[in-house]
Amino acid sequence: MGIVDVKCFSLSDTGDSFIELDSGKKFGPIIVAYETYGSLNTDKSNAILVCHALSGSAHAAGFHKTEGHNPGWWEDFIGPGRALDTDKYFIICSNILGGCSGTTGPSSIDPNTGNHYGINFPVVTIGDMVKVQKRLIDHLGIKRLLNVIGGSMGGMQALEWILRYPDIPVSCIIIAATSRSSAQSIAFNAVGRRSIISDKRWKNGNYYGDEVPADGVSIARMIGHITYLSEESMHRKFGRRLQDKDAFSYDFSTEFQVESYLDYQGNKFVERFDANSYIYVTKAMDYFDAAESYGGGKLEKAFKNIRARSLILSFTSDWLFPPHQSKEIVDALMKLKKDITYINIKSSYGHDAFLIEMETQAEIISNYLRATYNMNHRRGK
Amino acid sequence: MGIVDVKCFSLSDTGDSFIELDSGKKFGPIIVAYETYGSLNTDKSNAILVCHALSGSAHAAGFHKTEGHNPGWWEDFIGPGRALDTDKYFIICSNILGGCSGTTGPSSIDPNTGNHYGINFPVVTIGDMVKVQKRLIDHLGIKRLLNVIGGSMGGMQALEWILRYPDIPVSCIIIAATSRSSAQSIAFNAVGRRSIISDKRWKNGNYYGDEVPADGVSIARMIGHITYLSEESMHRKFGRRLQDKDAFSYDFSTEFQVESYLDYQGNKFVERFDANSYIYVTKAMDYFDAAESYGGGKLEKAFKNIRARSLILSFTSDWLFPPHQSKEIVDALMKLKKDITYINIKSSYGHDAFLIEMETQAEIISNYLRATYNMNHRRGK
Repeated sequence: MGIVDVKCFSLSDTGDSFIELDSGKKFGPIIVAYETYGSLNTDKSNAILVCHALSGSAHAAGFHKTEGHNPGWWEDFIGPGRALDTDKYFIICSNILGGCSGTTGPSSIDPNTGNHYGINFPVVTIGDMVKVQKRLIDHLGIKRLLNVIGGSMGGMQALEWILRYPDIPVSCIIIAATSRSSAQSIAFNAVGRRSIISDKRWKNGNYYGDEVPADGVSIARMIGHITYLSEESMHRKFGRRLQDKDAFSYDFSTEFQVESYLDYQGNKFVERFDANSYIYVTKAMDYFDAAESYGGGKLEKAFKNIRARSLILSFTSDWLFPPHQSKEIVDALMKLKKDITYINIKSSYGHDAFLIEMETQAEIISNYLRATYNMNHRRGK
Repeated sequence: MGIVDVKCFSLSDTGDSFIELDSGKKFGPIIVAYETYGSLNTDKSNAILVCHALSGSAHAAGFHKTEGHNPGWWEDFIGPGRALDTDKYFIICSNILGGCSGTTGPSSIDPNTGNHYGINFPVVTIGDMVKVQKRLIDHLGIKRLLNVIGGSMGGMQALEWILRYPDIPVSCIIIAATSRSSAQSIAFNAVGRRSIISDKRWKNGNYYGDEVPADGVSIARMIGHITYLSEESMHRKFGRRLQDKDAFSYDFSTEFQVESYLDYQGNKFVERFDANSYIYVTKAMDYFDAAESYGGGKLEKAFKNIRARSLILSFTSDWLFPPHQSKEIVDALMKLKKDITYINIKSSYGHDAFLIEMETQAEIISNYLRATYNMNHRRGK
């Protein structure tokens, strides 16, 4: 993609400026930052919603004029002739509720107090994020989405979409995701939150305009990065190689390349991500449990009303949301005789594969979208 | 075992009170805390050295009079009629150099300054720990060890023993260990150290007599505990169950059982383990690389002079030191036609299995020790 602009939509532009959260609270006003790529066709049948993962943003493709040459996070995937082909499809990506890249979140100003929300921001769920996306889709005048697609936490949103709004997406693509956060992934998120909250600079979430809890956020991100890679890919990438030296220094400086990599990733993240958003968004992931929310604990019951066809992709070496968790979704959909395609892609890149194995995914996804578009077009006639 | 006592040995009791560390520094004086169970036979051929893991101590079996009813960390394994049968064998276990349970470590008083060493304590290696154990064995008048046994970091020490002192151990048992810390395990250790060092109360290691860096140590231990369990065992143990409530609280309190478990483990650890020791001991693990230390990077070359017969045990669900890392040791030993037995034990308990799967291990180990004892006895005649 070329130069793109981020747009803003205020819920108040289209009626009720509040939404009812899963917690029971009403919350608003809400601003949504979003980007679009390609053009909506006349019968509005070519819209695809892209849902981003934990640390993503609305900037999925192209370059911002103001930001130099930072491409969107799925740039290789979105554009003319790419998997999400902007010559054919109208692509929408919005920053999630609770995020820190334009959409209302804990770092936003609470109009009632004039201060940042901080931890007065309400706890939100994946469902709440999707409710806000639905309002954006309404605002764009789109009645049906050709597809909702996302990886990792984006895949949770895609699954939430077909459950909450079964009549809107024609199809969905759920990549490297799960129907419920496991004990292990809750554990990693909990330690990350604990490290932020323990940072003296966090100050109960009131650090805006002051030093940010950089150590806490770095540590949380370092833990995250370990879970995004596989043991094999880490071994290949870093092995036991030392950074800039030949022999052990026998002190506690950053010594192995893998340490240096994690330090770098941690520090970089502090600059671009809000500590409170990290706390809120990981909590939303922990709460995610499609079986519990829609089926009283049973996935088959939860999936009963699904109408969208689904493509599920997992990666063999992903141990954060491992293939067997994708297979649980697949098994339940198959038992219900839903239109389901599942591919477990052989990859050594771990969870991060959804951002790395572009070629394999691109072929599968572009074929799937073409078939879905044609099927939907015939049906529409 | 019944009531046991911890004993102390000072290197100065048997000559040189210093040892030369792998870093090249000379270090001393050194006190070693150790326990023994059973009796040394007249020809001193029944001694077994038990090496403890990261957070262990010399207290491997029995009960201390003063500590109420806290059993040793391998109590189920050591005693009359048990796998390490105290009716037959003389069992020795000592706290490692750099530890915090009686042996000299960073929390000890530096006689030159009258203050705690803190980070003036030298960086030590698994090799240095073993050198100190060797001095203890000398002190006890033992020329050959029937066996050196250990799990996790204890297994690293067992391997180090048969490499550094090929003429001393008749056999070794290496459980859930590795010949070199992988990039992934270095990464987890590095994040744990970073969390301690980032804790404002750490104060460059000078926290003795003041508040300890409790948050940092807790977080490091929480990360550790995730790596000790498997995804499956965590799922079975905790699932997505909530602690003391039926519904989400929509706040950031400790909510899931798995969070509560990690909090508890973290807090408990703060009370019993020294923050600086955690930094030093994990660094020693990171440095461990048998191929590099003894074979210029080649395991086969490193293992050339091994004389001990070895039993290697791994656990199918251990992802911290996964079976394929044990197999690397086994393959190299087999190529060299060494006396090697390998069993990959089916278990869902992850790395912790070496402390849980006692029955399976007990049978294998007691048979192995009996055979080794008989073989050695015949050979001696």
